[in-house]
This record gives sequence, C-alpha cells and structure tokens, in this order.
Amino acid sequence: MAGREGGDGVGEADGPTRRLSDLDEDELLAQVVPRFAAASGPTPLMLLGPGDDAAVLAAPGGSVVATTDTMVRGRDWRDDWSGPGDVGAKVVAQNLADVAAMGARPTGILVTLVADPGTEVAWVLAFTDAVARACADAGVAVLGGDLSSAGPGTLTVSVTALGDLEGRDPVRRSGARPGDVVAVAGTLGLSDAGWRLLREGRPEADPEAVAVHRRPRPPLTLGPAAAVAGATAMLDVSDGLLRDGGRIGRAGGVVLDLDPAPLAGDVARLAPALGEQDARRAVVEGGEEHSLLATFPTDTTLPEGFRTIGRVRPAGVDGPGVTVAGVHAHGGGWDHFRP
Amino acid sequence: MAGREGGDGVGEADGPTRRLSDLDEDELLAQVVPRFAAASGPTPLMLLGPGDDAAVLAAPGGSVVATTDTMVRGRDWRDDWSGPGDVGAKVVAQNLADVAAMGARPTGILVTLVADPGTEVAWVLAFTDAVARACADAGVAVLGGDLSSAGPGTLTVSVTALGDLEGRDPVRRSGARPGDVVAVAGTLGLSDAGWRLLREGRPEADPEAVAVHRRPRPPLTLGPAAAVAGATAMLDVSDGLLRDGGRIGRAGGVVLDLDPAPLAGDVARLAPALGEQDARRAVVEGGEEHSLLATFPTDTTLPEGFRTIGRVRPAGVDGPGVTVAGVHAHGGGWDHFRP
Repeated sequence: MAGREGGDGVGEADGPTRRLSDLDEDELLAQVVPRFAAASGPTPLMLLGPGDDAAVLAAPGGSVVATTDTMVRGRDWRDDWSGPGDVGAKVVAQNLADVAAMGARPTGILVTLVADPGTEVAWVLAFTDAVARACADAGVAVLGGDLSSAGPGTLTVSVTALGDLEGRDPVRRSGARPGDVVAVAGTLGLSDAGWRLLREGRPEADPEAVAVHRRPRPPLTLGPAAAVAGATAMLDVSDGLLRDGGRIGRAGGVVLDLDPAPLAGDVARLAPALGEQDARRAVVEGGEEHSLLATFPTDTTLPEGFRTIGRVRPAGVDGPGVTVAGVHAHGGGWDHFRP
Repeated sequence: MAGREGGDGVGEADGPTRRLSDLDEDELLAQVVPRFAAASGPTPLMLLGPGDDAAVLAAPGGSVVATTDTMVRGRDWRDDWSGPGDVGAKVVAQNLADVAAMGARPTGILVTLVADPGTEVAWVLAFTDAVARACADAGVAVLGGDLSSAGPGTLTVSVTALGDLEGRDPVRRSGARPGDVVAVAGTLGLSDAGWRLLREGRPEADPEAVAVHRRPRPPLTLGPAAAVAGATAMLDVSDGLLRDGGRIGRAGGVVLDLDPAPLAGDVARLAPALGEQDARRAVVEGGEEHSLLATFPTDTTLPEGFRTIGRVRPAGVDGPGVTVAGVHAHGGGWDHFRP
C-alpha cells in the first residue's frame, strides 16, 4: 500500500475497524475538533473558533482573500497512491497556494468532508491530523467546517481558504508589462514526475518527486514577499508552466517568453528517473506543483527563492500567450523546449 | 413532479438533454459565471470577483465571519420534492442564516458543486440562477467557487458564507443571563410541516409550509438588528426550538423557559393541515426553519420582527437547558407543550 507508507497508520489500530456509521455526528466531532485546536496552537487572528454558528477571523488589512477547492476520491486521488494524510496536506496546500498567489498571507480555512458512512474513522482522523498540521505549519487557523454523509463510495474533501493582504493591493494575473522579468519560486515538474512514476509502478525511481505529488510544497511566504517586491502578476502553477504562463500572457495582453537555459537544471533534476524528453515535458507542462509564477518590473531585486526564467514581450502577430525562446508554445510546446 | 412546480424549468428546453459530460469545464464556467455577475449587480464590497486565483472581499469591520454548510442529494433533498432552484435558494439561506445569527451582515459566498457528469446542464444552470438570485436579494456577492466531477449519482452543493460584524462583537451562544427575555424572529414549524406534508403526499394541504421547506426565509437583516439592540445570545433554528434553545441554555449555564402562550398562534397556523398535536410538535421540534432565536436584557426594546416567547432562568437541579412552562424538555418536550 504505497499510500500507507506515508505514515498515516490507517488500519493499524487494534480491534475491529471502526466506520463513520458506528459514531453519531457529535461523537465524531468530539474527536475531530480537539485535533484541530491542539495542532494549531495559538492563532491570534482567530477571534472565535469552531462551535458557534460561524467563526470570526481577524482581517487586519480591511479585506479578505477567499478561494475554495475540492478533491474527489477516484478523480483527484487514488487510495492506493495517496493516504489520508497526503490528501489532507494536499487539499490545504493547493488552497493556501491560491491565497499566496494573490500576494496575501493565508490566515484561516474551513474544511468539509462528504463521506460514505462506511468510511473508516481512522481515515478521517488521519486526514484531520494532516489538515491540522499543514495549517499549523503555515500559521493558519482551522475555523470550522462541515461533515456530511453521502452515497456508497463517495469521499470528497473541500477547503475554503482565507487570507489577508496586509494593506496591499492583490497581485492579479493581468498586470504583466513588456520588459518585466518572469520568475518562479519553488520546484517544477516534480509532482507530474511523481504521478508518472506511480502510474508506471516505480515510485522508488524518484521518491522526492512522489512525495511532492502526494504533498505539494508551495512556497507560501514568497507570495506576500513577491507582492512587497512589486510583482506585477502572479499565479500558482496548477496546470503547468506553459498553460499557466499563457494565462498571465493573455490576461495582460502580452507574451511570457520563457528561457530554456535557467530551466535546464530542473530538467536535469528529473532526467535520471524520466529520461530527457519526459523530464522536459514534466518541467513545462506538469501541473499540481503549486509553485509561484510571477512577473516583476525589470530592475526588481527578486525576493530570495525566486529565480528568473524569462522575460515579458509585447504581443506579436500570434497574439498574447507564452513562448519558449521566442517560439509560440500551444499544447506541444515542450517540443520546442530544447536547451 | 412536485419539485418542478417550483418553476425551475429543468427538462423543458427543446432538443436533446445536455449533460455536464457534453461540456468541458471552461464551457460550463462560461455559462455559470456571467449568471452570478448578472444577478448580483453592484456589490461594492467585492473588490475582486471570480477569475483569478482567489477573490477579494472588503472587511470594513476589520474581521470576517465565516461558516460553511453542504447539502447532499438523497440526504438533504429529494429530487422529486425539491428542484434545483429550491436547492440553490436553500443552501444559500441556511449559510447566510448562520452569518446573521452571529449578528453579522452577510457579504459574500463561495459555492462548490460536485456532480456526476450525467447531471443535466439545465439543473446546474437553474441552481446557479437561484444561488445568484438569493445572493442578490441579500446584497451578497458571489466570490467564486469550484466545480468537480464525481461518481454516478453524486450531487453535492456546498456554500461558504462570509460576513461583516460592522465593528460589533459577535453574538455568541453563550451569553444568555437569568432574567433575559427569550425572543424569536421568523416563522416556526413551517419547514417541518412542509416536509411532513410532502412525505404524506398532500402538499396542497399547506402550500406555504411546503414552500418554506423548499426555500427557508431566514430574517437575515434581523441578525445585525438584534446585535445592535444588545442581544446576549443568538443562533438560527436549524434543529428545532427545543434542541437549539437547549444549546443556548447549556452554553450559558442557564435555562431557557419557553412560554406556550405566545406560541399558540404558531400552533394554530399549522393545526388545520397537521392536527393539533403534530402542529405543536412542528413548532417546538421542527428544524431547518432558520429563524433567529435570541436572548435580550429584560428592558430591551426588541427590534421589530422579534417576539417574546420566554424568559431565561437560573439553572436548577436539572441543570441548564430548556423548559416549557417550567418543565424540563428533553426530546419529547412537545408533550409538555399544552397551552
């Protein structure tokens, strides 16, 4: 059970397997809620925690950033590849990355679980612990959530993440201007590589890539740092560098021209496990990485953790979008991506 | 089809039935997002709407109230009793009621749909229109959301609602003090009565009750009004007057003693359709009404729309909770409830 190597411990308890149908909602909440509180420790922005009709979170910047994202078993994860701890860490990471990509500091989440009553209680508790730990690591409060039962086989987890702009304007996708530097913070291609290796049944070929696929590591603090440094556009890489770069290009009416040279190290990192061609493909097309892709005015001193990977150009005859070394990259763009 | 009498129009379009599997996500979003924007009109608190990694909502009071609640087909609604417009209106109403019950003004929502790809596009669009209309009616912005596909038969809708306290403290469940007045704003028992009549196949016996079951009408503006008036505790009636009253009693270490006399009119309203005994039961035990139950200091001038239904007493030998005319009411409390 590859997913269980992650240390979630499902099924290891003594005695018969307990399922959600063995508990009523109050009994389950009595186990879940204290785990959130214990892990998160003092979260000074949480003015009122779970247990009332709603929670109250401080919004010191006078506004709140809000986003939501769901994972569905069988669509967004496979139980044999990802344990409950992986799912909990990932659903938090991808939501917090969306907040950070606005230049905001993530401050709180709400979490919803919709589950077949046959779901193991141990799964839910391991999921809960991972959510709590991911939030604690990021200084984020767990404000509350909802538990619902559903039909056989259903297991869906949703997070709504909130954040604070600390008085700054949000960094939108649309602000890139010709001459800006294109920069990225975080890894590229590891999640996609990990998914390929799991699919091919050889996760041992690159355990770190598999770990990133299971639990992405978005550089959350670099979102606000990029905003402070003057980032003109930003998003998190959820659908791949080319596709997400194209979004920034089209939103700003410009072209993001990526330079293969600074990405050669990312390709070399993955080539031993994937081969050169698939490594290139993973780096420029791989999604679910949740690294931060941003543009900055040309004379910006980039925050530590960002590296330059290209330049913003005016849109040419092919219109706005993304190019690699000047060549428009739609879909099969990785073909053009030869150092 | 009782649910389709609600005017949702599912299945009435010409041509073959379109299903979610006939559209890609971008095509579906292109139909959904403008419906939210069109319905909500100017929502000055929405600083950045859907389309980026996250939305931005003003939080003028310096904090944000947050809650989330999910409805699952087959558990929280039946397609033959509730159409998509009913489900959209209800999931918004119950979430906004939770915000109002903190004394806050609802300001924004995020909405998530997890659906079998075989779901009719018309269902999703009618749901969308109802969510948009319910938000527009309440002056609430639709900030964004998520669409996910799931296994056969699955249809789940979730809303996260946000609100603003306008500089006030939240009204918690725990603040009731002996001597306070117990008051309610909104109807009692209609949703439960509507559900009974649908179950018994005679919705025509009380169409208004059925309408409230399908689309609750929480008195949202009275939440902030209660807070301004000095409410000491408040919640929305989601599990019935006795059960929710018991929550306020236990949270404050007091007893909420309900007076049958002012509830006689609520019982009389439902007696023609349900009979006297079931009408009493619906009034004190009926859930999903989402009216506001609050306590106020004894000399308060209640906001218009609230009516006094009891008094807060010190906890006696039976401990904190709820009584009816001085008699402790656990579970079968309706038996004691004779005017």
